[in-house]
Amino acid sequence: MSRVYNFSAGPAALPLEVLEQIRDELLDFHGAGMSVMEMSHRGRHFAAIAQQSESDLRELLAVPANYKVLFMQGGASAQFAAVPLNLTKPSACADYVNTGIWSTKAITEAKRYCKVNLAADAKASGYSTVPQQAEWVFTPDAAYVHYTPNETIGGVEFPFVPLPPGGVPLVADYSSSILSRPIDVSRHGVIYAGAQKNIGPAGLVVLIVREDLLGRGREDVPTVMNWTIMAAHDSMPNTPATFSWYVAGLVFQWLKRQGGLHAIESLNHAKASVLYSAIDASGFYRNPVAPGCRSLMNVPFTLPDARLDTLFLEGAAQAGLAGLQGHKLVGGMRASLYNAMPLAGVQALVAYMQEFQRRHG
Amino acid sequence: MSRVYNFSAGPAALPLEVLEQIRDELLDFHGAGMSVMEMSHRGRHFAAIAQQSESDLRELLAVPANYKVLFMQGGASAQFAAVPLNLTKPSACADYVNTGIWSTKAITEAKRYCKVNLAADAKASGYSTVPQQAEWVFTPDAAYVHYTPNETIGGVEFPFVPLPPGGVPLVADYSSSILSRPIDVSRHGVIYAGAQKNIGPAGLVVLIVREDLLGRGREDVPTVMNWTIMAAHDSMPNTPATFSWYVAGLVFQWLKRQGGLHAIESLNHAKASVLYSAIDASGFYRNPVAPGCRSLMNVPFTLPDARLDTLFLEGAAQAGLAGLQGHKLVGGMRASLYNAMPLAGVQALVAYMQEFQRRHG
Repeated sequence: MSRVYNFSAGPAALPLEVLEQIRDELLDFHGAGMSVMEMSHRGRHFAAIAQQSESDLRELLAVPANYKVLFMQGGASAQFAAVPLNLTKPSACADYVNTGIWSTKAITEAKRYCKVNLAADAKASGYSTVPQQAEWVFTPDAAYVHYTPNETIGGVEFPFVPLPPGGVPLVADYSSSILSRPIDVSRHGVIYAGAQKNIGPAGLVVLIVREDLLGRGREDVPTVMNWTIMAAHDSMPNTPATFSWYVAGLVFQWLKRQGGLHAIESLNHAKASVLYSAIDASGFYRNPVAPGCRSLMNVPFTLPDARLDTLFLEGAAQAGLAGLQGHKLVGGMRASLYNAMPLAGVQALVAYMQEFQRRHG
Repeated sequence: MSRVYNFSAGPAALPLEVLEQIRDELLDFHGAGMSVMEMSHRGRHFAAIAQQSESDLRELLAVPANYKVLFMQGGASAQFAAVPLNLTKPSACADYVNTGIWSTKAITEAKRYCKVNLAADAKASGYSTVPQQAEWVFTPDAAYVHYTPNETIGGVEFPFVPLPPGGVPLVADYSSSILSRPIDVSRHGVIYAGAQKNIGPAGLVVLIVREDLLGRGREDVPTVMNWTIMAAHDSMPNTPATFSWYVAGLVFQWLKRQGGLHAIESLNHAKASVLYSAIDASGFYRNPVAPGCRSLMNVPFTLPDARLDTLFLEGAAQAGLAGLQGHKLVGGMRASLYNAMPLAGVQALVAYMQEFQRRHG
């Protein structure tokens, strides 16, 4: 057994301790005589798993008491539809900020359900920056303002939390940066995050919603996308993704053992700093993002000649560095440095990059 | 480690061999240096998993070439909305057959999207039987006819495949009986099944759809529920539930090793026969379902006095027999005998039931 350093953007590396725990209790969870995969979501064992995981997530993110925490299926992409379906009528307008490919996906889906105003668009910068909020143009009576705190493909991260006009709820797709550092949940109306980066296996999406925003959905929202019904049934009007939920709970416990989000933020800053510094100092590798908006989690970079890409990836694989190929829409390389990536993995990547440059620079 | 016999209705028992395989490759899948949970759905390892699982399922069910096989999220409950959203316009009418609680759920959700005609309703029998097809009243131009081949809670299974009027597609919620015996897929337009009974972990739903039924969806079907988009992107327009999909693939391979669906059907008949015979011969336990409509998979039964239920369940737990409590809506007991339940488990249950009767009968 030889584990690699996995820089995949998602599904992504999980902490080895968590995987070992899953393995060790896979055939018999805490004396239940069965796997978590096999147990009823209505039984006492799973009820305890669900309660503990919610409690741990609330503690990690300091979620205020007037927010519900939901564990749903369908990934963040399902929420691209669920957000307008739960928060608007068809005649309403929602404000979106476009900072890249994932914002664009959310916007495209929302346009099928309500009017969409682009409050700001980073297009002029080639999506290499976040527009200053002073330049944003809000709709006065918008149903909500939606933004993408971290663009997984572009590697652009908000250096601030937007401030919508009074009373307009802020909605965030936190898929690729949730749990990477503290979040001021109270400044948001809705936070959602696909699990497969910093939470657990794909097939789960965590949603944090302020209670006063429930009950606004339209008549035709599918039951499994209806936040109000989900909240009323503790995320179990139907069978939830039990095993993924359990793994998420183990990740939350691991994060608490690491010291919580302030501690992991320090480590994430250290990891990102090592990589960005190496890129900037190289005169060979290049990251296109404005320095103040560089992502802590996803670091895209290019080589001076795209014809070197295949060679770079082959050598990386031989060095035990996996998942470095950039998204097919943008090409180049991308190193995702989620919580489960140790500093040693980033150091190994930088050492490989320097060696590659020496041989091909 | 002491495994119990798990009679849970779902999530449900998985084959021990499958769990052991998951455990053994949990930290390093086939030399990839990472868990399946951690790998990109776009990479070669997962592509091979996806292709093999689809191929094995097609072989097991003899799926004709003009059907697409989709691996989606949200469980069967998501398909309760997706079926009318993908097959009707709001003015259309769909025919539903009501044979119990799960049919009713499908009907309730469908009514939010189209007109629903109850082609038949087993209400008069207390949902203890399947109405003869000669009595059904079809809508001539129905968008489809929907039925529930096996009612997980009621324990009622269709002894025949319905025959809709010419050209009207037949849609089946096969959640709790898929893979328990051969199915004539070609007589169906759409088959869907939540994974957590005979396929794998909760959070996955398998959908088999005839190609000519794609492209009929309405404008506002959420992208993650859109069969046409799912089919065009090999079930991956967004990140699928990768780990659940992988486990499903292992279950398909296990089924092939058991000899496929004819072999497992024989075993399932033997298991059900042992339990139903014991119930009928007891003069103590009782199953309410008409003999010709008794489920191979879910066997509800009652004790002569509901005050004995708690005692029965406590003794069962001590005997290593888990998950026997009936659904909260109907009470009593229920033994689910999915593919992963060995004959020895059913024999152990019957021995316990006989011993309980000797002491309390």
